[in-house]
Amino acid sequence: MIVIVKPEASAAQLEQLLNRIRELGLTPMVSQGAERTVVGLIGDERLVGDGVLESLPAVEQVMPILKPYKLVSREFKKTDSIVEVRGIPFGGPEIQVIAGPCSVETAEQMRQAAAAVRAAGCRLMRGGAFKPRTSPYTFQGVGDEGLDFFREAADAYDLPIVTELMDVRKIDVFLEKRVDVIQIGTRNMQNFDLLKEVGRLNVPVILKRGMSATIKEWLMAAEYIAAHGNHRIIFAERGIRTFETQYRNVLDVTAIPVLKKETHLPVIVDPSHAGGKAALVAPLAKAAIAAGADGLLIESHPCPEEAWCDADQALSPEQLTQLMGELRRVAEAVGRTL
Amino acid sequence: MIVIVKPEASAAQLEQLLNRIRELGLTPMVSQGAERTVVGLIGDERLVGDGVLESLPAVEQVMPILKPYKLVSREFKKTDSIVEVRGIPFGGPEIQVIAGPCSVETAEQMRQAAAAVRAAGCRLMRGGAFKPRTSPYTFQGVGDEGLDFFREAADAYDLPIVTELMDVRKIDVFLEKRVDVIQIGTRNMQNFDLLKEVGRLNVPVILKRGMSATIKEWLMAAEYIAAHGNHRIIFAERGIRTFETQYRNVLDVTAIPVLKKETHLPVIVDPSHAGGKAALVAPLAKAAIAAGADGLLIESHPCPEEAWCDADQALSPEQLTQLMGELRRVAEAVGRTL
Amino acid sequence: MIVIVKPEASAAQLEQLLNRIRELGLTPMVSQGAERTVVGLIGDERLVGDGVLESLPAVEQVMPILKPYKLVSREFKKTDSIVEVRGIPFGGPEIQVIAGPCSVETAEQMRQAAAAVRAAGCRLMRGGAFKPRTSPYTFQGVGDEGLDFFREAADAYDLPIVTELMDVRKIDVFLEKRVDVIQIGTRNMQNFDLLKEVGRLNVPVILKRGMSATIKEWLMAAEYIAAHGNHRIIFAERGIRTFETQYRNVLDVTAIPVLKKETHLPVIVDPSHAGGKAALVAPLAKAAIAAGADGLLIESHPCPEEAWCDADQALSPEQLTQLMGELRRVAEAVGRTL
Amino acid sequence: MIVIVKPEASAAQLEQLLNRIRELGLTPMVSQGAERTVVGLIGDERLVGDGVLESLPAVEQVMPILKPYKLVSREFKKTDSIVEVRGIPFGGPEIQVIAGPCSVETAEQMRQAAAAVRAAGCRLMRGGAFKPRTSPYTFQGVGDEGLDFFREAADAYDLPIVTELMDVRKIDVFLEKRVDVIQIGTRNMQNFDLLKEVGRLNVPVILKRGMSATIKEWLMAAEYIAAHGNHRIIFAERGIRTFETQYRNVLDVTAIPVLKKETHLPVIVDPSHAGGKAALVAPLAKAAIAAGADGLLIESHPCPEEAWCDADQALSPEQLTQLMGELRRVAEAVGRTL
Repeated sequence: MIVIVKPEASAAQLEQLLNRIRELGLTPMVSQGAERTVVGLIGDERLVGDGVLESLPAVEQVMPILKPYKLVSREFKKTDSIVEVRGIPFGGPEIQVIAGPCSVETAEQMRQAAAAVRAAGCRLMRGGAFKPRTSPYTFQGVGDEGLDFFREAADAYDLPIVTELMDVRKIDVFLEKRVDVIQIGTRNMQNFDLLKEVGRLNVPVILKRGMSATIKEWLMAAEYIAAHGNHRIIFAERGIRTFETQYRNVLDVTAIPVLKKETHLPVIVDPSHAGGKAALVAPLAKAAIAAGADGLLIESHPCPEEAWCDADQALSPEQLTQLMGELRRVAEAVGRTL
Repeated sequence: MIVIVKPEASAAQLEQLLNRIRELGLTPMVSQGAERTVVGLIGDERLVGDGVLESLPAVEQVMPILKPYKLVSREFKKTDSIVEVRGIPFGGPEIQVIAGPCSVETAEQMRQAAAAVRAAGCRLMRGGAFKPRTSPYTFQGVGDEGLDFFREAADAYDLPIVTELMDVRKIDVFLEKRVDVIQIGTRNMQNFDLLKEVGRLNVPVILKRGMSATIKEWLMAAEYIAAHGNHRIIFAERGIRTFETQYRNVLDVTAIPVLKKETHLPVIVDPSHAGGKAALVAPLAKAAIAAGADGLLIESHPCPEEAWCDADQALSPEQLTQLMGELRRVAEAVGRTL
Repeated sequence: MIVIVKPEASAAQLEQLLNRIRELGLTPMVSQGAERTVVGLIGDERLVGDGVLESLPAVEQVMPILKPYKLVSREFKKTDSIVEVRGIPFGGPEIQVIAGPCSVETAEQMRQAAAAVRAAGCRLMRGGAFKPRTSPYTFQGVGDEGLDFFREAADAYDLPIVTELMDVRKIDVFLEKRVDVIQIGTRNMQNFDLLKEVGRLNVPVILKRGMSATIKEWLMAAEYIAAHGNHRIIFAERGIRTFETQYRNVLDVTAIPVLKKETHLPVIVDPSHAGGKAALVAPLAKAAIAAGADGLLIESHPCPEEAWCDADQALSPEQLTQLMGELRRVAEAVGRTL
Repeated sequence: MIVIVKPEASAAQLEQLLNRIRELGLTPMVSQGAERTVVGLIGDERLVGDGVLESLPAVEQVMPILKPYKLVSREFKKTDSIVEVRGIPFGGPEIQVIAGPCSVETAEQMRQAAAAVRAAGCRLMRGGAFKPRTSPYTFQGVGDEGLDFFREAADAYDLPIVTELMDVRKIDVFLEKRVDVIQIGTRNMQNFDLLKEVGRLNVPVILKRGMSATIKEWLMAAEYIAAHGNHRIIFAERGIRTFETQYRNVLDVTAIPVLKKETHLPVIVDPSHAGGKAALVAPLAKAAIAAGADGLLIESHPCPEEAWCDADQALSPEQLTQLMGELRRVAEAVGRTL
């Protein structure tokens, strides 16, 4: 950590700063520059709380040198981590596609959905029994029973299931239904109590990026999970909020190579929520793979026009099958398989 | 709701659209324009799910006419709602200032803080026993015991207490400790399970705006609370996330008059988290009152430099007292009291 | 255009609205809904100025139905337009890569740069003689003489040249030096006088997206050029400004398929300015092609570490050659050539 | 400037970095920390071009210590600068309100507008003869003749005039018509050739903030003007672009105290363009003054409903007069006059 001293700071104020640094257990090293005095802190800068040094009168600016995340960082572990879901590897040369409906509706819909997901060649299935909806007046998900529909349909086609957890009180049900991958949604990326709880489980977690979360905040959210013991974390970029409103979100493809450099954990992309339109799924999915993503989360539905939510962004079984073919070619072009 | 039809849509596709509208329980009214055909929907457009019509091949664009929120809307209730906290009114001519530390630290710190809050003329006190922190390695709050320190200190000075709830499992403790106002923080604005639960309580709620929440999403989050029975809601603007990084957030003063027009509920402002620096609190607090805010949430600490979190944004007792004097003059200039 | 009438509007206010619509040369059609009265406008809604109807007391909201752009729209011309630069087609199945240094430095540097661009298999060359720099104290470009260095070096390798125009007073020099493609930079996307002047030329134009320009504003900027007679326009996405500051900009890949749907004109991508780091150029360039871009603008330099500006984002000759090979595979995977 | 060295950098790479720093005319000072090596640069860090050090293999991160602006900085000149316009001071205790129509329409309209501006107690007048419009098909301004209408009307009421310059080729006409204050609009904040030219004039300049310009970029744009000799610069905050679309822009009131700290130059606010609605002008104008603004730019029109542009945001003469009374009270509450 480096502290820039105000040019007008008095000797007493500088002394107060140096004492405070020592109190925190670090060693200050003063460098007198032409226009500014700079103090370097020797020791573990993570001991310094937010704003503590900034509150002193001598301080113009505080610059951290170390990254605030540790367990999830590439520095901590140099090689790529593979997160396995019932033998299916995320983070290796093989790209994984998780497909399925936005929400679980009926047992029959889930059976048809699972059949289509398997037929298209996807290896995992997604679907939500509990739905975070902007309006209290719209469909909120089928609930516990939905997990049964999902489990049964997926088992028939031997597909591990991925589903979103929003409430700590539902963890027992999730364990009982043997949910294979727990998804933490964009609105809960900084629901720290939820992160701590999934950190205590031995279940892989897909951590979606918050709507306006920085890369650093996202890595810190994963660090919460890892710090509580669960290192099986998969990052999922799903588009960020910007000034542009012609499409739902802006898919941040730059986040893919940047994350792959900052962390050893796998990174997947959700092109369906990013674009918010079925017609945008194919170009965004291809871009994600070309940029180095380890997998995709895609919404598909046996009959998109009849879907109970997000009807305009789900792919039909035919569209999903066609897309898988196209993605395979892009994957091979960047030296991977699908 | 109005649907713009694609210029290239076939007669069969248009027919499919009209049938779907009728299935949803609404009546379509077709207008043939020079360049576009437009279909108006007569009936309750809230019956139409997101994306349902957009998924049809005939549809170019769907435009809602009605606002998606109801109970919290100015249309539903024309006159200003007063939310009373132990007799202290939010939303009337009197402006309320809630002050206190970022986090509860010790019994002694809370006593000193309460004394200073009362001496400065503020009528309520804030403080967090559970802290949402970006890093798992920083101070996470004192926990349940902190509520005791808070309750005791505030009672000694007859100050109602405002504190943040992050976890549904803590509601019982909050009720037991007689928390006067529950704060829902920015990271939980769309934690829908939490919103539903506080919606079932008979305790006033301060609902902070999500970091990148639109006015509409914020009103919908309040609608969740209201729809579950609790109408005692106070909106708190606390700065939004933008491209500017020289200060922590951008205080959105425009939100104040816009909310006052859209909803009958009170609107307060948190200038401390908005600016993130003690020096910015006074100008932002004055701006908020000048723009029509009904109250303020201000961080203060008996000794800011010693604060366990956000040390650089808390006001000292002297600064708080001076600010209250300055705010009183601005309040009077806009025809209010403080 | 559709006008939503306030529920509380009086009959006289509604009448005033209808009269104003007729004065503007359009025909109003009133529909009485359950909760709102809606007025449709029959005729050319482009006749209605911004804010004219909004200023009337009866009006709650005005919703345009037509797109404000015409000549550049896909509706105006259904088939893809090919913009040819000395026989090299933009917008067809072949993807074009334009490479070269950020700024023209010396005759020798440009000769080496041109040799490397040609050797790598790129078909056009970029370079700036006039540089838009944030600081008045940094290198502002070599100026007129730089165009000579550029012209000469590019001619030796038969490469058409692309260079940025910032000042209307430089158009004569650009014509004299036979600049093949004029680039309008991100800071000038809404420099309307400049757009009008290049609209009067018969030279292809690359129009970069403004740092926070919406798709609609970008299309309107192109419409300025087209409306003055020049239809040879190429859009260049170069990253947008968001809350994320870990990388320079966020490359908006979604803009590619959206633009290809909205306009018949070609769309290229600048991965160098988007990411701002040499290491990000390859993944972003691949993503752009996978998403459907018609070309790329890439910074390269004979010796990046010695570059006079943006030294950390230019590719070396070896990196450029290697990237071209990788891009060729991605291009083929999406059915195109490079 | 401080350079963080990569933990994996070799001794040779570190040596290369130190040599490069010496070549640039600075002295490197190496500090070996527990987890990182840090190199401080002694000398004028402004000599180091963007990206030069970042391009070296040893470098993890480069952190500037000095601010890149100089002449406009508070460090350069500690006391507030007063910019006088024909004897009217900007930047002192008196707050200045500049009012008038969005665009010059006719001689008669300008006469009525000037009478209303003077009657309301405003001391300067605004109006545009050349209008930057998003669409090439909407009214582009009356042109040169408009400046005559404006000059004549303003002279009759002894009001200095403020008008926007978009094109360097119009400077002679502006000088000939004796424009009192030249406004640089939001879309031209980084039109560097225009900034250089107004930097060579002896006419006060109002520099509007770019739609998504950071405080630092805005200060650097002013530095361009100052570096070319013209120090009579007034900053004008006019709202920034964010994710929120319910109002035109988000007025950034935080920018006011931050700028007042960073620069010695005056800061005014344009509440009309910020909110984009007449009803928002009063609350935003009051907030601006409460936050410390030195003046306001307000749109007013003799008959807003008939205005040729931005009809929904102009105040009527009565509204302007009433607002001036309200603003006077707020100004006095913060110790200023109006």
